[in-house]
Amino acid sequence: MANEPLLMIPGPVMLHPRVLQAMSKQMINHRDKAFSDMYDECRNALQYVLNTKNDTYVLTGSGSCAMEAAISNLVKGEKVVSIVNGKFGERFRDIAGRYGAVESLEFEWGNPIDLAKVEDALSKGAKAITMVHNETSAGVKNPAEEVGKLAKKYNALFVMDCITSAGGDLVEVDKWGIDIAVTGAQKCLGAPSGLSSVTVSKKAWDSMVKNPPYYMDLKKYKKSAEAERSETPYTPSVTLFYGMTEAMRMIKEETIEKRIARHRKGAEAIRSAAKALGLELYPVTDGKTVLSNTVTAIKLPAGVGDKDLRSPMKANDGVAIAGGQDRLKGKIFRIPSMNAFTEADLVRTFDSLEKTLISLKALDQGKKNAGVDAFRKVYNS
Amino acid sequence: MANEPLLMIPGPVMLHPRVLQAMSKQMINHRDKAFSDMYDECRNALQYVLNTKNDTYVLTGSGSCAMEAAISNLVKGEKVVSIVNGKFGERFRDIAGRYGAVESLEFEWGNPIDLAKVEDALSKGAKAITMVHNETSAGVKNPAEEVGKLAKKYNALFVMDCITSAGGDLVEVDKWGIDIAVTGAQKCLGAPSGLSSVTVSKKAWDSMVKNPPYYMDLKKYKKSAEAERSETPYTPSVTLFYGMTEAMRMIKEETIEKRIARHRKGAEAIRSAAKALGLELYPVTDGKTVLSNTVTAIKLPAGVGDKDLRSPMKANDGVAIAGGQDRLKGKIFRIPSMNAFTEADLVRTFDSLEKTLISLKALDQGKKNAGVDAFRKVYNS
Repeated sequence: MANEPLLMIPGPVMLHPRVLQAMSKQMINHRDKAFSDMYDECRNALQYVLNTKNDTYVLTGSGSCAMEAAISNLVKGEKVVSIVNGKFGERFRDIAGRYGAVESLEFEWGNPIDLAKVEDALSKGAKAITMVHNETSAGVKNPAEEVGKLAKKYNALFVMDCITSAGGDLVEVDKWGIDIAVTGAQKCLGAPSGLSSVTVSKKAWDSMVKNPPYYMDLKKYKKSAEAERSETPYTPSVTLFYGMTEAMRMIKEETIEKRIARHRKGAEAIRSAAKALGLELYPVTDGKTVLSNTVTAIKLPAGVGDKDLRSPMKANDGVAIAGGQDRLKGKIFRIPSMNAFTEADLVRTFDSLEKTLISLKALDQGKKNAGVDAFRKVYNS
Repeated sequence: MANEPLLMIPGPVMLHPRVLQAMSKQMINHRDKAFSDMYDECRNALQYVLNTKNDTYVLTGSGSCAMEAAISNLVKGEKVVSIVNGKFGERFRDIAGRYGAVESLEFEWGNPIDLAKVEDALSKGAKAITMVHNETSAGVKNPAEEVGKLAKKYNALFVMDCITSAGGDLVEVDKWGIDIAVTGAQKCLGAPSGLSSVTVSKKAWDSMVKNPPYYMDLKKYKKSAEAERSETPYTPSVTLFYGMTEAMRMIKEETIEKRIARHRKGAEAIRSAAKALGLELYPVTDGKTVLSNTVTAIKLPAGVGDKDLRSPMKANDGVAIAGGQDRLKGKIFRIPSMNAFTEADLVRTFDSLEKTLISLKALDQGKKNAGVDAFRKVYNS
């Protein structure tokens, strides 16, 4: 509805009414069969979404908790190669730095990574390599399959953050050789923030360190999940599991294939609309960069500050888009295509964007509707 | 309502309809003022409940996460004294063991701790001492004020788990000298599971180690909370904050004094009802043990197994009480007096207990209603 606030940030995403309603259910005992069934349903659905048979666990904690669970169970002092071309790559590197000797392979945010440099780093020996699949901060997708091959070649564990790709883009955990894949609930999975997950390969199990942080100890998750009735080692958030279970059912109803296609089309339409307004995408579009299918990063027009654009969109039209983070603050804005977004949501977003750019004299009056028209053209093709 | 399931376990507790309803609200941006206001309201309310001016943060994670946050920020290799007289004391010791050299001071579960032994251990030097205030596994309360004095005398940091006392019993963080007090949302605070909190004293800030687990790094929580607009360092569970904010409002409306008195009366009435049925409390009642005001641990009558009692109560009457944990499995059952319990809830619980004990020939037919009568007598006095 036009007067309802429209949250267009790359997570937490707006939740479907079915998911919201599920979370107002009364508490149950987290050691009962009813909880166990929910836990198993979520874990099975994640395996479906991520194309894996690997053991899968859901943690009560945000994506950073699962990122740390991945690293802290695999590394104690050994070398870790961390690929960094955005804010979340930095975060993964910083987390890895608390457990291992990190070699930070840095590329300009929004630029493609250089696989030759990755191979060079791995060839010198490393226990693990970390990468963010979909770098939300810069709107780029990193080459998971290729890095997976290099990790295998040099016998490094491949740890990948799929937090903003899982459920919205293709993730092939088994085929790509991802030893631990990390997800967060509040992005393309369409579930509430506060849950995250990991998948664990046999090779990862064989490489576990002793005494990782207690709350993140994956061996405890395994033991509890394999008990007579599966459970979590510590009290889970039952409420959030209600929401996640419903969200995962919706993914299965839609099918992951159709869901990925829908996200892809959303991103294509957003990019087309941005171009029609004369806006420039942030990522280097040299043919090597793969653009994200779940979030589009767009440069702020010259002379337009972050608040100049986002504040009136929110105040006048109720449309909250995302700004840039850290070094990209004041340089870009971001529009997601995540979860339950509709054509109407994105039309409303571009309508507000056009109006606001015109009022800022950053768009000609005559271009009003150019974005929306371009968007609709792709979206309905 | 008689046909609705009645969850009588010591957390997660049943949630008040106001709290449940709050959690079906649509997502907001966790970097917006609306979230910041909720975060501050929860932190202020926790300070009120815990009688402290210390910095207070809410973590997205269960109580074990906050227990580990407390230890991992204070200890790296140094000696820690851990008081153990129940399952959660063991857990605190096990967590401490991942970060420091633990001296485990063990007392029989449900027995009082020996302060002379605590003093002896501290007198040899320790960086920190851990204790569980209210040991839910055994139904006893430990002497926080006395241990706080000893910690101060020997200059050890006092880390206390108040997970099942906060909001249901008196906790005086500042007066008792608790350097880090840990709570969980899903017990007497009446909030949903998945959130936990810590309070941090000046002395604790002055004693922080470098590079604790990233997700639990309290310096990051401090920096984010003290930003121009307070926030959490990682994506919080907005949904759970909706629930917790409402739960904390309900505590302030009731006042903490009246709430503690209500919990205490509930526990007294439960104990009286148990005695009237000829049941024996689990904790040693030698005058030294202080019984818990939030959960009552009762011995199973001779010849009655855990499932013999609990399964028919749940199947026939919809009343789910708690069994014993670990070494107390099959030896005790537990009835909580936590959060929004009503007289009707407890009457229904004892009515079901009486019927079931009679059917198991563990109670004389003539004693039907003896528990309920004794309960009502105390409850309405």
